[in-house]
Amino acid sequence: MEFIYKGKTKDVYQKADGNIRLVFKDEMTGKDGVFDPGENQVGLTVEGSGRSGLRVSKYFFEQLNEAGIATHFLAADLDEKTMDVTKASVFGKGLEVICRYKAVGSFIRRYGDYIESGADLAGYVEITIKDDERQDPFINEDALVLLGILKEGEYAVIKEQTRRICSLIQSELAAKGLTLYDIKLEFGRGEKAGDIVLIDELSGGNMRVFKEQESVHPLDLEKYLFV
Amino acid sequence: MEFIYKGKTKDVYQKADGNIRLVFKDEMTGKDGVFDPGENQVGLTVEGSGRSGLRVSKYFFEQLNEAGIATHFLAADLDEKTMDVTKASVFGKGLEVICRYKAVGSFIRRYGDYIESGADLAGYVEITIKDDERQDPFINEDALVLLGILKEGEYAVIKEQTRRICSLIQSELAAKGLTLYDIKLEFGRGEKAGDIVLIDELSGGNMRVFKEQESVHPLDLEKYLFV
Repeated sequence: MEFIYKGKTKDVYQKADGNIRLVFKDEMTGKDGVFDPGENQVGLTVEGSGRSGLRVSKYFFEQLNEAGIATHFLAADLDEKTMDVTKASVFGKGLEVICRYKAVGSFIRRYGDYIESGADLAGYVEITIKDDERQDPFINEDALVLLGILKEGEYAVIKEQTRRICSLIQSELAAKGLTLYDIKLEFGRGEKAGDIVLIDELSGGNMRVFKEQESVHPLDLEKYLFV
Repeated sequence: MEFIYKGKTKDVYQKADGNIRLVFKDEMTGKDGVFDPGENQVGLTVEGSGRSGLRVSKYFFEQLNEAGIATHFLAADLDEKTMDVTKASVFGKGLEVICRYKAVGSFIRRYGDYIESGADLAGYVEITIKDDERQDPFINEDALVLLGILKEGEYAVIKEQTRRICSLIQSELAAKGLTLYDIKLEFGRGEKAGDIVLIDELSGGNMRVFKEQESVHPLDLEKYLFV
């Protein structure tokens, strides 16, 4: 296996069969030792967080694949903390696609003059570009096309796939008594022309989840999912 | 006439005939005595700036009305520094519609990783909500509809009207040897159901204009337009 890239929370290898192997690490994004999915830097190292994130990701990816939604997921090995995925190239230098069910976080920081904190947002989708230096700026459809990051029509496809994916995850969490507030996805172009697939991971680190009025720590998510 | 509202650069009165009278003041937006159309605060007072802004606005509004584009403009009196307009209500607490021909300012601050400063943007349109406290946050079509600021379909209408208006202004400036970099418009709902009209003013204070490689000060714009 050939080492390709050292990520903040995962390392990436090229497998001999043409697919990619992700190795989950025990690092989480955050600041000053506190987990924050919106942070761009690694803020803390927690033993077991890599395996936990992989277990949750495997669980959701398998359901999405079963539901016929295109993802990069092939297989996962919890003991080795590896996830094998198909090859995909990110849009530009990477996009973050956010789906919101409750008005919290940056949505309130931007639009708090128009909506109460905690109000329902019914799966509203927005996109930011990955750019640590510029704090992941918000972008609209026209700018994505203008800058050559998306082709005409791809925004609508990504939005529709995001809604399907997040609706499935939201229902799954609801069945366990959990409320999804918001979630961050990543997409890429698959190897077949025109394919847009869900990439990256799908763990507690990508979503804000609440149990009644209490925030669920990302590492506690598996406790509720696998009872 | 009944006083309605004291704005940063204009005062607003209700006329007896049902229309509105705007009285232009000698105040300009900026910071530390330097003009900046992107600033939200009044930064300087310049004798004659009210009349100058009104003269340029009158010039462009008359051309837009002749071209059959819906605006609130009725008439202007340069000596009294007044502009009479039809009644219109802003969207939410007010939107700023920005049309960009060159990548400068906040566009580069956001997307500088993808485009060179000064590159052509071909009339790209984006919208921010007026909110001084939150520095006029950027917003996309879905959030505008979700927050009840725009109705379904209005975003496309505003974008199309913006392109027509700015294309006319850009051509007019080009005929005088000037290059329009970007421009900020405001729209409102007219009194007839479904009407979307251009409101506010159309002066140097709303646009970044260059003469060759030199920025044209907003108060110098009339010097180039009326030779």
